[in-house]
Amino acid sequence: MSKLSHLDASGAAHMVDVGGKSVSERVAVASATVSMLPETLQLLRDGGHKKGDVLAVARVAGIQAAKKCSDLIPLCHPLMLTAISIEFELDASDTQVLITGRCKVAGQTGVEMEALTAVSVAALTIYDMCKAVDRGMVIGGLRLLEKQGGKSGTWRAGEPG
Amino acid sequence: MSKLSHLDASGAAHMVDVGGKSVSERVAVASATVSMLPETLQLLRDGGHKKGDVLAVARVAGIQAAKKCSDLIPLCHPLMLTAISIEFELDASDTQVLITGRCKVAGQTGVEMEALTAVSVAALTIYDMCKAVDRGMVIGGLRLLEKQGGKSGTWRAGEPG
Amino acid sequence: MSKLSHLDASGAAHMVDVGGKSVSERVAVASATVSMLPETLQLLRDGGHKKGDVLAVARVAGIQAAKKCSDLIPLCHPLMLTAISIEFELDASDTQVLITGRCKVAGQTGVEMEALTAVSVAALTIYDMCKAVDRGMVIGGLRLLEKQGGKSGTWRAGEPG
Amino acid sequence: MSKLSHLDASGAAHMVDVGGKSVSERVAVASATVSMLPETLQLLRDGGHKKGDVLAVARVAGIQAAKKCSDLIPLCHPLMLTAISIEFELDASDTQVLITGRCKVAGQTGVEMEALTAVSVAALTIYDMCKAVDRGMVIGGLRLLEKQGGKSGTWRAGEPG
Amino acid sequence: MSKLSHLDASGAAHMVDVGGKSVSERVAVASATVSMLPETLQLLRDGGHKKGDVLAVARVAGIQAAKKCSDLIPLCHPLMLTAISIEFELDASDTQVLITGRCKVAGQTGVEMEALTAVSVAALTIYDMCKAVDRGMVIGGLRLLEKQGGKSGTWRAGEPG
Amino acid sequence: MSKLSHLDASGAAHMVDVGGKSVSERVAVASATVSMLPETLQLLRDGGHKKGDVLAVARVAGIQAAKKCSDLIPLCHPLMLTAISIEFELDASDTQVLITGRCKVAGQTGVEMEALTAVSVAALTIYDMCKAVDRGMVIGGLRLLEKQGGKSGTWRAGEPG
Repeated sequence: MSKLSHLDASGAAHMVDVGGKSVSERVAVASATVSMLPETLQLLRDGGHKKGDVLAVARVAGIQAAKKCSDLIPLCHPLMLTAISIEFELDASDTQVLITGRCKVAGQTGVEMEALTAVSVAALTIYDMCKAVDRGMVIGGLRLLEKQGGKSGTWRAGEPG
Repeated sequence: MSKLSHLDASGAAHMVDVGGKSVSERVAVASATVSMLPETLQLLRDGGHKKGDVLAVARVAGIQAAKKCSDLIPLCHPLMLTAISIEFELDASDTQVLITGRCKVAGQTGVEMEALTAVSVAALTIYDMCKAVDRGMVIGGLRLLEKQGGKSGTWRAGEPG
Repeated sequence: MSKLSHLDASGAAHMVDVGGKSVSERVAVASATVSMLPETLQLLRDGGHKKGDVLAVARVAGIQAAKKCSDLIPLCHPLMLTAISIEFELDASDTQVLITGRCKVAGQTGVEMEALTAVSVAALTIYDMCKAVDRGMVIGGLRLLEKQGGKSGTWRAGEPG
Repeated sequence: MSKLSHLDASGAAHMVDVGGKSVSERVAVASATVSMLPETLQLLRDGGHKKGDVLAVARVAGIQAAKKCSDLIPLCHPLMLTAISIEFELDASDTQVLITGRCKVAGQTGVEMEALTAVSVAALTIYDMCKAVDRGMVIGGLRLLEKQGGKSGTWRAGEPG
Repeated sequence: MSKLSHLDASGAAHMVDVGGKSVSERVAVASATVSMLPETLQLLRDGGHKKGDVLAVARVAGIQAAKKCSDLIPLCHPLMLTAISIEFELDASDTQVLITGRCKVAGQTGVEMEALTAVSVAALTIYDMCKAVDRGMVIGGLRLLEKQGGKSGTWRAGEPG
Repeated sequence: MSKLSHLDASGAAHMVDVGGKSVSERVAVASATVSMLPETLQLLRDGGHKKGDVLAVARVAGIQAAKKCSDLIPLCHPLMLTAISIEFELDASDTQVLITGRCKVAGQTGVEMEALTAVSVAALTIYDMCKAVDRGMVIGGLRLLEKQGGKSGTWRAGEPG
């Protein structure tokens, strides 16, 4: 198993040198769920404005968070995302909102953390806006679904390493 | 069921007026897990420096994220946290790191989102630092464990509402 | 005429000492217009989702900007807003969107700059989201409508000083 | 009329994918006015230090705001500005300060929002520093004067679309 | 000797709980020097505009940095400074600029780090603006001069502990 | 002696246009010392966890500060660092911690300010974490050790200009 690249030989943290990597188009897709009471999901589903606004605010929050990723995750490289999108799927039977985020860049390092951060903050924003009616919501299954580009190429969840 | 307090009568988002609430001591505790391969957990567990540094970096990231909460979550009020702490528990049998975050303030609004944000960013930082050896890690169970203070008083996970 | 309080006796900028001021409830209301082509306004007005989303994004941007005010305006004091709201009024005959922002705090200094900053960034966000169809939009009439609280009490636009 | 590019087919906001656009040198120039009482303009005009400092502070605020544009305007792409400048012109007869801002980048997306944001925050800073003597100041005429570069080439205010 | 308060019993970092401390007026004064070639100091000293602008920009940078202190220094508490000022003294014989910064708050924790951060960033800004003519400048003597308020009361440099 | 490049012909500050400069690999190394009581240095030196954590926190703070450089230093260009590392050397006889920071980018402008900012904030973080036992610590010798790349090529401290 390879070593943890964010630690140098003595175990100290550093921001890995990516200066020697080639620039390629990189994409990452991440997802998470927010589990809630059926009544809470119904509130999101009901009406145009109300539903629109909770998810619209969460979408904006997720997009802005993707851009703040290198400020939040200490060893992430700053980079210039060329695309960010976030989608919500309301699943009544599961009483879950499924959030999927996708980031893209042409750069020397991947955008996995940007996609995960976007999804995470979108989920937290839904929690914030619904917590007055449902404090027991749980955010789960936050993971990378797919990455493309870079030396290691394409990876999809379920595949090894 | 009460309405979503972050939306006004027309469904538009606003930052709720908390000016009329009384100041009380408020505490919130949140937690999440990062599930990983046994070999990845072993890497965290092994050696002094290496283990120390991954979790030390994640702890700092979580503490700093708690302070950025109102910048990340659009309708959160800015507030002056008086205490932030984050703990990690490594559970070999479950191949999980359990993260617990605790925030405190004397103010007019609770610190649930601050605690959840701290835990979330600490988890993302662990993902970032270990992803070179284990892309399939999953962050789950991100939820509020307990809140104290404010008009609604103490609440613990598992209790209604 | 009184001197400029942000400059000391030698003309150097400083952040004015408000430590001796008493805490009072302070409110400020500001407004601005975004003038656009009738077709652009019609795009905002049409349909539920599209209209909702442009203004929903602009509203979130304005709310978040109010919280960043002391980071943007060098001599503004940091403060903990207790309420922020932003409203839009679409005026077909004038081909204008009227934006009104309101901020509130209990503190030693007013929130005029927070309200003005919120309105300004909401207006810029509308410009950003519509500029693909209408580069000639103009933001105008950005001004304070009213302030309450503090030693000088209530002031309304149109009144002297 | 073309559709609003920041909304996808369903009307949801996203950060437009610019990954396929070619890199070109892009420049944008924006301007605004701050209207004030003649006595206030005279204060800005008088003396070396005092005049220098208000405008020097406003200039720094505008330059720093241009760099924060993608953090303020939710759907703006992060980019690496290669030049920012801000100029002030004091017009005694009109009792106005005219602010002009210019931004430049070599990139896949334009810098219109950066120039508009720089001018807007410079104007707000003048308001902040002079509001103790003149609360009725009005910021107006905030608009794009010119853009160069990109697929659509050069555009100047007064020209269609 | 007392233990390091930012580390808990197990040596892990946390943001110290100041919730039990009483609110008092707290002031801190810090200073540093920037040593440079006589010609560089002469450039700062010469002319109105040029001198004014380098130091005006450095002053603004220092004031803004004081407000960002809790974002820069991981275990600092967020707080609402009520006053910030920065002064420069040009000492031709020593070929040094002496920078003094002063911060004030009514709060539960001191403002030493805010004053030190303000002075540090003001010094770095002078370095940045003069480095084209003098790369060998050295920033030194960055230290706390005095603190007032809090349980430990007044302390001045040169006194023990 | 060349003029100060951050000021235009009239003495006004601007962000220098680097659009015409060629992209090259640029490296900068900076250092500083934190002088403290022997007992304070001993605290850093003692034990695994405690020593590890103070320096681990300071290292993270320095790395994150390097990424914030263009937000802190008004006329710095935003850039995408490809590597950041920070090292500490404890010198018992001198009662000093020596901090060395190294930044790297492929870009049109150097990373001197990023390296200096990283070292400065790492030093301030050590001060913050040890100030409870030693308020008299002094940060000194903050300077550029070496730069590589760009039109002016390699420079080392001790060499002219």
